[in-house]
Amino acid sequence: MSESDIQLVVVGSVGIDTIETPEERREEILGGSASYACAAASFFTKVGMVGVVGTDFPEAYRQVYRHFQIDLDGLQTVDGKTFRWSGIYEANMDNRHTVSTELNVFASFMPNLPEAYRKSPFLFLGNISPQLQLHVLGQIEKPRFVVIDTMDLWIDIARPDLLKVIQRTDMITINEFEARHLSGHKNLLKAAQILLCLGPRFVLVKKGENGSALFCKDSIFLLPAFPLDGVIDPTGAGDVFAGGVVGSLAAGGEVSEKSIRQAMIYGSIVASFGVEAFSLERLQMLTRGEIDTRADALRRMLQL
Amino acid sequence: MSESDIQLVVVGSVGIDTIETPEERREEILGGSASYACAAASFFTKVGMVGVVGTDFPEAYRQVYRHFQIDLDGLQTVDGKTFRWSGIYEANMDNRHTVSTELNVFASFMPNLPEAYRKSPFLFLGNISPQLQLHVLGQIEKPRFVVIDTMDLWIDIARPDLLKVIQRTDMITINEFEARHLSGHKNLLKAAQILLCLGPRFVLVKKGENGSALFCKDSIFLLPAFPLDGVIDPTGAGDVFAGGVVGSLAAGGEVSEKSIRQAMIYGSIVASFGVEAFSLERLQMLTRGEIDTRADALRRMLQL
Repeated sequence: MSESDIQLVVVGSVGIDTIETPEERREEILGGSASYACAAASFFTKVGMVGVVGTDFPEAYRQVYRHFQIDLDGLQTVDGKTFRWSGIYEANMDNRHTVSTELNVFASFMPNLPEAYRKSPFLFLGNISPQLQLHVLGQIEKPRFVVIDTMDLWIDIARPDLLKVIQRTDMITINEFEARHLSGHKNLLKAAQILLCLGPRFVLVKKGENGSALFCKDSIFLLPAFPLDGVIDPTGAGDVFAGGVVGSLAAGGEVSEKSIRQAMIYGSIVASFGVEAFSLERLQMLTRGEIDTRADALRRMLQL
Repeated sequence: MSESDIQLVVVGSVGIDTIETPEERREEILGGSASYACAAASFFTKVGMVGVVGTDFPEAYRQVYRHFQIDLDGLQTVDGKTFRWSGIYEANMDNRHTVSTELNVFASFMPNLPEAYRKSPFLFLGNISPQLQLHVLGQIEKPRFVVIDTMDLWIDIARPDLLKVIQRTDMITINEFEARHLSGHKNLLKAAQILLCLGPRFVLVKKGENGSALFCKDSIFLLPAFPLDGVIDPTGAGDVFAGGVVGSLAAGGEVSEKSIRQAMIYGSIVASFGVEAFSLERLQMLTRGEIDTRADALRRMLQL
């Protein structure tokens, strides 16, 4: 295995977003769960992106992926329009409303993975239809560690397929609201226990500015978020967090509860940078040194 | 100094609550910030309560205080009605509405402290009018460590007096909403920095199920809350947390950022028990062994 081998495959949406926060409106910016997750993972490991764009996808955005040295052999271009999402954040940034989701070229995307991707030890099934997640999962020859992320949309319209994918994964990353929605239980502890029964050994709950929590059969790990003096755009923070976690796990190679705890620090830190700007703009300027410095700062904030 | 000397004086409301949660309604139960804080502190140190009740205060509730071995020399009984508070929790328990607050005998309470109280090294100015807090503070001869708690009511109607008290304290405990309200800044990090400028060396922000955060001039400590599989009544959780923190600090004697971090574990754990029942009902059955067991469990959940 060489350094250039794909260590992590990420499938998810690749899209163009229009986002309105209380402060600012940005149109047609680069987004999508795969974009965010791949960018985050790229700080730690060699990542290949599985996704599809239309012929309208700007070359400048492809350049952004290249900046992160994301392998693009799994990114197809087909006739049609690129996936689009548009959302509005409320005054406190806690709630957002989806204005529109257009799957466009993603509606019928069922790719054959490049040969190098099939041998990838790590797989992140980012937020996209469970059918596509399942299709990609089936092509990875010997996945060592499979992580799934999802959202309320798929819980609502594709629950049976979603449960099929979840059953075959090692870890699910999910936000508090979705954990309650998927489990049917409003208490987070009970919700996580129910999710553990669905198949994964690890349930990683994302709580935004309130941090994250890792639930295993016999233990729990609680990680506060790095405190920020302002958030510009929280879009993709969950994808960046998950991408950072899986990416740094892939870099280490070994997966254990202990290594996931460490990886959560990195995911959390990259996410803390990600929300400091729209799209991938802050991550494009981010250095590994900045990540390590802020990770050290967070560790000091957790020291008993 | 003997073991029976008062190590911590707590002033705050002593009252009778009527509380409605989505599950249950309880009338005329023992409440008040001093009740909750003293009970929590009593697990760690010798605490004296400063407060006032009317002649209607049930003997059974005085017995509850005796159960915790709270010194009651500072608890006066006067003609009139005991302080009463009534509130309703919304479905998710996150929001509550105050239905009524009747200060009653507290309206004109300006006590002379017992001699033994004046020599107390630790002082907790629990949630009550800033005028009363100031009056009590003025009688402590050589306070080694003074902690203040407050609420939106006092921020609204008695801000100048409140600022006077805060200036003379070492630590303020405050919830997220109040921190924003008092500082005028919605970002918690900036709000805490502003509060540090008001006088205290330590700002301890209470975030309920999302834990707590300690802000000092050059450092931050983040503590997640112990995850619970259900909350029966969150009333007084902030008072119990603060009482547990100050009580365990008083027991150790030494105050440093490090010792406060440890004390926060204890405050957090006692609070996690407190919300498992109405009033002081769970704390009355609580043992020091249970506290230590759950504190160890929490520490394991924080281990990197």
